[in-house]
Amino acid sequence: CLRHSVGIVGAPFNRGQPRDGVESGPDLIRAAGLLQKLTQQGCAVKDYGNVTCDDVPADEPFGCVKNPRTVGRANEQLSHTVATVKREGKTCVVLGGDHSLAIGSIHGHASVQGQLGVVWVDAHADINTPLTTPTGNIHGQPMSYLIHELHSKVPVVPNFSWIKPCVSARDIVYIGLRDVDLGEHYILKHLGIKMFSITEVDRLGIAKVMEETCDHIFSQVQKPVHLSYDIDALDPTVCPATGTPVVGGLTYREGVYITEHICQTGLLSAVDMVEVNPKCGRTDHEVKSTVNAAVDLILGCFGRVREGSHPSDYCISQP
Amino acid sequence: CLRHSVGIVGAPFNRGQPRDGVESGPDLIRAAGLLQKLTQQGCAVKDYGNVTCDDVPADEPFGCVKNPRTVGRANEQLSHTVATVKREGKTCVVLGGDHSLAIGSIHGHASVQGQLGVVWVDAHADINTPLTTPTGNIHGQPMSYLIHELHSKVPVVPNFSWIKPCVSARDIVYIGLRDVDLGEHYILKHLGIKMFSITEVDRLGIAKVMEETCDHIFSQVQKPVHLSYDIDALDPTVCPATGTPVVGGLTYREGVYITEHICQTGLLSAVDMVEVNPKCGRTDHEVKSTVNAAVDLILGCFGRVREGSHPSDYCISQP
Amino acid sequence: CLRHSVGIVGAPFNRGQPRDGVESGPDLIRAAGLLQKLTQQGCAVKDYGNVTCDDVPADEPFGCVKNPRTVGRANEQLSHTVATVKREGKTCVVLGGDHSLAIGSIHGHASVQGQLGVVWVDAHADINTPLTTPTGNIHGQPMSYLIHELHSKVPVVPNFSWIKPCVSARDIVYIGLRDVDLGEHYILKHLGIKMFSITEVDRLGIAKVMEETCDHIFSQVQKPVHLSYDIDALDPTVCPATGTPVVGGLTYREGVYITEHICQTGLLSAVDMVEVNPKCGRTDHEVKSTVNAAVDLILGCFGRVREGSHPSDYCISQP
Ligand SMILES: [Mn+2]
Ligand SMILES: [Mn+2]
Ligand SMILES: [Mn+2]
Ligand SMILES: [Mn+2]
Ligand SMILES: [Mn+2]
Ligand SMILES: [Mn+2]
Repeated sequence: CLRHSVGIVGAPFNRGQPRDGVESGPDLIRAAGLLQKLTQQGCAVKDYGNVTCDDVPADEPFGCVKNPRTVGRANEQLSHTVATVKREGKTCVVLGGDHSLAIGSIHGHASVQGQLGVVWVDAHADINTPLTTPTGNIHGQPMSYLIHELHSKVPVVPNFSWIKPCVSARDIVYIGLRDVDLGEHYILKHLGIKMFSITEVDRLGIAKVMEETCDHIFSQVQKPVHLSYDIDALDPTVCPATGTPVVGGLTYREGVYITEHICQTGLLSAVDMVEVNPKCGRTDHEVKSTVNAAVDLILGCFGRVREGSHPSDYCISQP
Repeated sequence: CLRHSVGIVGAPFNRGQPRDGVESGPDLIRAAGLLQKLTQQGCAVKDYGNVTCDDVPADEPFGCVKNPRTVGRANEQLSHTVATVKREGKTCVVLGGDHSLAIGSIHGHASVQGQLGVVWVDAHADINTPLTTPTGNIHGQPMSYLIHELHSKVPVVPNFSWIKPCVSARDIVYIGLRDVDLGEHYILKHLGIKMFSITEVDRLGIAKVMEETCDHIFSQVQKPVHLSYDIDALDPTVCPATGTPVVGGLTYREGVYITEHICQTGLLSAVDMVEVNPKCGRTDHEVKSTVNAAVDLILGCFGRVREGSHPSDYCISQP
Repeated sequence: CLRHSVGIVGAPFNRGQPRDGVESGPDLIRAAGLLQKLTQQGCAVKDYGNVTCDDVPADEPFGCVKNPRTVGRANEQLSHTVATVKREGKTCVVLGGDHSLAIGSIHGHASVQGQLGVVWVDAHADINTPLTTPTGNIHGQPMSYLIHELHSKVPVVPNFSWIKPCVSARDIVYIGLRDVDLGEHYILKHLGIKMFSITEVDRLGIAKVMEETCDHIFSQVQKPVHLSYDIDALDPTVCPATGTPVVGGLTYREGVYITEHICQTGLLSAVDMVEVNPKCGRTDHEVKSTVNAAVDLILGCFGRVREGSHPSDYCISQP
């Protein structure tokens, strides 16, 4: 097992959706011991702190897109920070915050690495364009700004002009979908994007899904993987403290299996862990369960395996 | 995806078992938005209202069978109503009420359609005869009145003389069994009825179970399918508000997968959704979770798929 | 289905770990109706009562191993009792109590039966030596005292000199592991012990895991099986009342499937059911759920199957 070098970036973004609380995600995940645990399992960890997300004044909706200038500017900053982390040779972990942060995270990642494979684990596809979105919330749109093949369908939103599409439709795999808007479904099918909805997870089992995910992503060429993990992919009984829970999600075990498998490819290059919202938990237990799952998923990305492990130079004590 | 024409019938029967509350099932399921949601997903829906279940006076037990005249008469009425719905060319959805309603529902269905395939999703087999029943509750007996091969084993219960057996043992598949009485087990094995107990679901996975279910039902000839769905098939952690919960049930995902698969055969002709009992839920959350699952299962029967969908004439907006 | 002859032994051991409450396990499991239910499903049951676990005075730690003399002496007694049960030709069920009891249980079993296959179902490997243990708790060490291949790595602990290693590394299978110490992982890998961590259960499914378990155990020769079942193998949502719960465990259904499969081999010779601790449950419901699961797992070991069963001479009543 190689020694991972990890850079942590907090992105307390909450303007991509309407609920307070999701801005506490980065600090809660840190407070649950993420850095110590990564260090303990042999990672070299550097914390790059939080990218701020200050409200831009007079941020009127663009069409029905809400808070465009605030979300656009914050993501521009995040893109630069992620690019820095990647230039310093680390695997980048972005702690959200809402899923709008994937704009900056993937953009910054691609600006350094070039062609990426994107594995998007989520109950939602987050691929609405500014013109198809039923809610106007940007956390439901990040993919639309990033995909080459959608460029002509996406108007230029204020403070979004810095974004250059950087991901190809054929380099994306979705896992866990179960609440997809009709415009999103049209886009997914029209672009032939690979997806394993919960129905496919039921049909194939998570092991086969991960095999096929990697077959798809690496079919033509090995490339760095960006794993964008929305905590609402997991079932609300496991991760209730999130803004848009959807019944019938991934089990904790399936969620962790995904990370173990991606880690073993040796090609994981950046991870987003998003949508942990303590104000959406009804009890302390619900919040803790959600935060702890987020931590465990990240640990799984960096070599933790459930069967355990030992250093190659381990020596057992003799009587 | 074809446009489904759906007829809803409420059957607030509660005399097939001893607990109050199950008579509220039909109205609770409607109040959770069933009709609007079906309409929204493209179905043409007609509500036929509720078949009443008035107590017949002096309804003394027949042997140990409880409330025979009340349950018999109510089912006779239900049989007529279901026959009307089928004659009008709709897929019939009967909302229970207790599972004794399957007598009238399947009888009325078969009276119009002839040979049926019956998929019975339940923790229980509900195949006791009036002579094998350990409790006397008719919701544990409906299948015994309907199967040709059991005719000679079933005495004529008061107000049951209108019933003609209409289902063949080889046209039945059970899914989810985990609490089967010994007389029931004898009958199942003796008649060679196909069953996938929870052990088989564990062994094969739900996808293989559904493949084999359809292979069995359609092995000789395509035929209309009657899906009789007891909400207690699902695990009590998902659907606690039911009268006879049994630990170790189907997951929400498996439960929905069954409906998605049956829908895709194009042969679903009638559905029972039974045994939702709000008085058996300990909290409002437990009742809601149970009712919502019932709604989702019905939606899955009529074209809802978790990966989403879009109209064939959908056009994406351009900037 | 053969008629099982079962001997019940209570082992209210609690000195193998630090938490009060686990000593109530045997009586709680009995109070939940274990003996009546076993009898009802056709077993001949004899209760051998409880082996006491009196504190040895001045039981100072040996290195960091806690309560060595108390645990050692109690296990010596248990070994004799289990040997008696086996000599009387019964399948032995030891009700814990903490998992340190496996020392006496397996030792006594092997002293009568000779070569055993051991199936260890647990979140933990319980294979630390007195020198690798990070906690000093003996319930995390029982396997180390029993395995031939570890003999040279284990110092003689006070009151442990009666123990003779009696199990071969190749005759052991672990199922459900997800919290393994690094010394333990070294031992497991170094000795090539077969294990199905939760990752493998995710990958293969429980049916394939059980097939491979039996292939491994019986690869060379049929032999009696000792099933050592730690209730913490099951997920904490199912069995929360236990001392060292670990997230992401076996489902109730997987847990029961294991017992159904082992029973069908016809070679089950002894069962431990351990680590039920009512004081670790936060509510009565949590305690009941844990105790009931323990009972169901034992029933599954002795012929209970979820599809039901009927006596071979069953006759259905005729009208
Ligand atoms: Mn989401
Ligand atoms: Mn998302
Ligand atoms: Mn039932
Ligand atoms: Mn039923
Ligand atoms: Mn354990
Ligand atoms: Mn243990």
